[in-house]
Amino acid sequence: MAKQIKTAITPTREEDYPQWYQQVIKASDMAENSDVRGCMVIKPWGYAIWENIQKNLDNLFKDKGCKNAYFPLFIPKSFFEKEAEHVEGFAKECAVVTHTRLEDDGQGGLKNAGELNEPLIVRPTSETIIGASFSRWINSYRDLPLLINQWANVVRWELRTRLFLRTSEFLWQEGHTVHSEKAAAQEFTMKMLDVYAEFAEKYLALPVIKGEKTASERFPGALNTYCIEAMMQDKKALQSGTSHFLGQNFAKSSDIKFQSSEGKEEYAWTTSWGVSTRLIGALIMAHSDDDGLVLPPGIAPAHIAIIPIYRNDEDRKTVDCFVTELLLKLKDKRYNEEKIRTEYDTREITGGEKNWNWIKKGVPIRLEIGPRDVAKNSVFMGRRDKAHKDKKGVQLDEFVNNIGKYLLEIQQNIFDKAFKFRRDNTAEIDDYQEFVRFFSPKNEKKPEIHGGFAYSHWCGDSGCEEKVKEELKVTIRCIPLEDVKQEGRCICCGKESSGRVCFAKNY
Amino acid sequence: MAKQIKTAITPTREEDYPQWYQQVIKASDMAENSDVRGCMVIKPWGYAIWENIQKNLDNLFKDKGCKNAYFPLFIPKSFFEKEAEHVEGFAKECAVVTHTRLEDDGQGGLKNAGELNEPLIVRPTSETIIGASFSRWINSYRDLPLLINQWANVVRWELRTRLFLRTSEFLWQEGHTVHSEKAAAQEFTMKMLDVYAEFAEKYLALPVIKGEKTASERFPGALNTYCIEAMMQDKKALQSGTSHFLGQNFAKSSDIKFQSSEGKEEYAWTTSWGVSTRLIGALIMAHSDDDGLVLPPGIAPAHIAIIPIYRNDEDRKTVDCFVTELLLKLKDKRYNEEKIRTEYDTREITGGEKNWNWIKKGVPIRLEIGPRDVAKNSVFMGRRDKAHKDKKGVQLDEFVNNIGKYLLEIQQNIFDKAFKFRRDNTAEIDDYQEFVRFFSPKNEKKPEIHGGFAYSHWCGDSGCEEKVKEELKVTIRCIPLEDVKQEGRCICCGKESSGRVCFAKNY
Repeated sequence: MAKQIKTAITPTREEDYPQWYQQVIKASDMAENSDVRGCMVIKPWGYAIWENIQKNLDNLFKDKGCKNAYFPLFIPKSFFEKEAEHVEGFAKECAVVTHTRLEDDGQGGLKNAGELNEPLIVRPTSETIIGASFSRWINSYRDLPLLINQWANVVRWELRTRLFLRTSEFLWQEGHTVHSEKAAAQEFTMKMLDVYAEFAEKYLALPVIKGEKTASERFPGALNTYCIEAMMQDKKALQSGTSHFLGQNFAKSSDIKFQSSEGKEEYAWTTSWGVSTRLIGALIMAHSDDDGLVLPPGIAPAHIAIIPIYRNDEDRKTVDCFVTELLLKLKDKRYNEEKIRTEYDTREITGGEKNWNWIKKGVPIRLEIGPRDVAKNSVFMGRRDKAHKDKKGVQLDEFVNNIGKYLLEIQQNIFDKAFKFRRDNTAEIDDYQEFVRFFSPKNEKKPEIHGGFAYSHWCGDSGCEEKVKEELKVTIRCIPLEDVKQEGRCICCGKESSGRVCFAKNY
Repeated sequence: MAKQIKTAITPTREEDYPQWYQQVIKASDMAENSDVRGCMVIKPWGYAIWENIQKNLDNLFKDKGCKNAYFPLFIPKSFFEKEAEHVEGFAKECAVVTHTRLEDDGQGGLKNAGELNEPLIVRPTSETIIGASFSRWINSYRDLPLLINQWANVVRWELRTRLFLRTSEFLWQEGHTVHSEKAAAQEFTMKMLDVYAEFAEKYLALPVIKGEKTASERFPGALNTYCIEAMMQDKKALQSGTSHFLGQNFAKSSDIKFQSSEGKEEYAWTTSWGVSTRLIGALIMAHSDDDGLVLPPGIAPAHIAIIPIYRNDEDRKTVDCFVTELLLKLKDKRYNEEKIRTEYDTREITGGEKNWNWIKKGVPIRLEIGPRDVAKNSVFMGRRDKAHKDKKGVQLDEFVNNIGKYLLEIQQNIFDKAFKFRRDNTAEIDDYQEFVRFFSPKNEKKPEIHGGFAYSHWCGDSGCEEKVKEELKVTIRCIPLEDVKQEGRCICCGKESSGRVCFAKNY
């Protein structure tokens, strides 16, 4: 058996949060840095989480009437330049394709050849290239609304990268919709924000705040950017999804026009919205502990890891038979309308190693099954939402009949824990000195852990926003959509304010 | 109602096959050329077919123990150069990223900036970048076999492109596996070829020939390349999937070593295998007719299109209620273990237009439902495997109870038709003059339609292969795996041969 370990992850969250994050990823075998600067390799355990995110979000999108399509990876530079704010926002960090082949350089190496007349940009986002298609597809108001989604890879050249949170290439979905009316586009922008919030809470067990970005944090070219923001365990905010009302900006730059029911030619109204593999970073940082990853059942690649305990071949046969029976009984059980996902771990390592392995991988339920359990017709269950030593024997039928309930409890407990953490680290602050203290390190050795979400008044002036950012590295994460209309005085300048906004340090 | 149309697609297959292909795609609204040279836009109807291909193939891969992962889009030039044949094979057609940002050029435009020290190649295939990860992941024989698949976009710069068949960017899956024994790797190579053949026949209704490629058509760097080849309706062959035994070539260039059970360090044995959006091209060209696309139920985005027929609001309400009942009754029905996929077409166009629309989109079953059908408690059914006028009334319950049977029949009929077409256009040929005639146009006006598959003897000499290719543009599609061991004389040089190979013109 593996030796007694106090916690599986070194350092702990308390000791060094950023380093803890890297170690949780390593210990759960989710991803690694690649040989290409800033690009990650998503390993099977991490990718299976992404597949579950994709599958469930995709169903939600299709419920709203969206259809998937696929558009080119490359965007001609001239397209990119059509929308002035847009190019300004993305030009500083893009991969530029300039050549179309490699040729013998006469010195045993290869040189670039086949230079393009116009360089191509590897898509950082696809408004402009999708807009070109939309302008061809749309003729009449009868063609609207057009609700399209794309699952794709995108590239934004990053200098300082961190697995899942900030990588030069990442995977995402980008929805792009076109409407005949301004109000319909605005409504759809909010509808997709709600989809993201619902998904985050129901599947990722991630409580989120819905809000609007200030002008300085808007998507380049958007009229309004809405977001969901979640609190990580270092009390920083992580933006987990965005939905943009683009007005007629992109319709004008891409010439997306339609004939109205009155026969008039009009520019359309568009939206775009996206979430990315960054969600996996949010998942890790919101729920994991010093034993490693903690996965909500809604998104876990495996709900149950089954760990056979045996000393000899006869034991092993006994356990195998019992597990076969268990798997058969679980076959018709469901969680969130999905089959129960199981991993039967038959590797040739010790039971103790396997147990720690699945703890670190965050699997919601571990079952240790040895000959004594078989004799008692029971399983020995450990739950990832409880302490790793807190295990108990459960009769086989009781376990099978309650599997849906256990998973639901685990999902709820993970959510509640994150919700409580956020509540405990959120404050309404009306005094700037208090505001400064709130965001200052409590301990010089742990500069990363401090603060939380401060709901404070803001006058609406970008100068105040900028001043706070410069002084404290604190930004307005969002202007919350709910429950904040209240008069007061700006935390920075003292002028009148009509509501509180959410300030935090952020990723 | 729409006016009587003889065929929906102009030109017909007989009149101009390549143009017919483009028109089928246009009429079914599957894809279009983009503004980026050689890159296509896959529209919702085409992408939904790809999603069905993905979903079903992915299940088959997972049944074989494969897991999905994701690797970088970019490959450093130096990685690419590690395997000599490999770089030789792909260097002539690759997208090269040389810069990482755009900068103001001082003249109102943008210039390339942030030049990379080492250019990055947009992956044309991922053996080298995946190999780098595998060499980190694998230490011991206990880590093997490693069975990984990736769904991704790849880029091979093409000058002459055709939607789905040959595009600069395409979507595919690439499987990459590592084994400790040569025989195990060879066996897995064949296993995945079988998966492709099974998938093509069961889902795409596409009869395929399994065989091995000759040396000249091998994947650059492979020891053996196996393929599935299908016959299109212009009698040309289309390679629809490949599986490569890579020996230790890539293990050596990527340093993929493992400690054997005897404690010796050894190079591993690898395989790779892939299919792409080209399968959609195969699907179109194998089954479609002069009325447009014909989709096998195994892969159709909708199994049934429901077309309401009404003259006034009251009719419409009657039909709506009836359709609601129909949809409810279909809810628990299955085809290939999947739910029955339906489209209720409520657009504001005539029933005749809708009917032609769904014919051209290839949907297997069309149901026209008007007040008279409701009164009789029946539906008026048209099947895409029958003539478009061949429609008949069916009692509602009879229809619902038999939906699985209808779809199975349609799937089988589509397969049988393609199988018969291939059989009728395949010949064993032992005389070169006859061989020449077989591959010569029968009609000067239709240079595209001629020949078929010729099973002829080949001595194994690449000179003969090259000569036939130069003289007739006919290549050896594969050395079939089955039923061809038979002595004879090479069709080209008359020397001894131990078996027939499959010659054809190809895409």
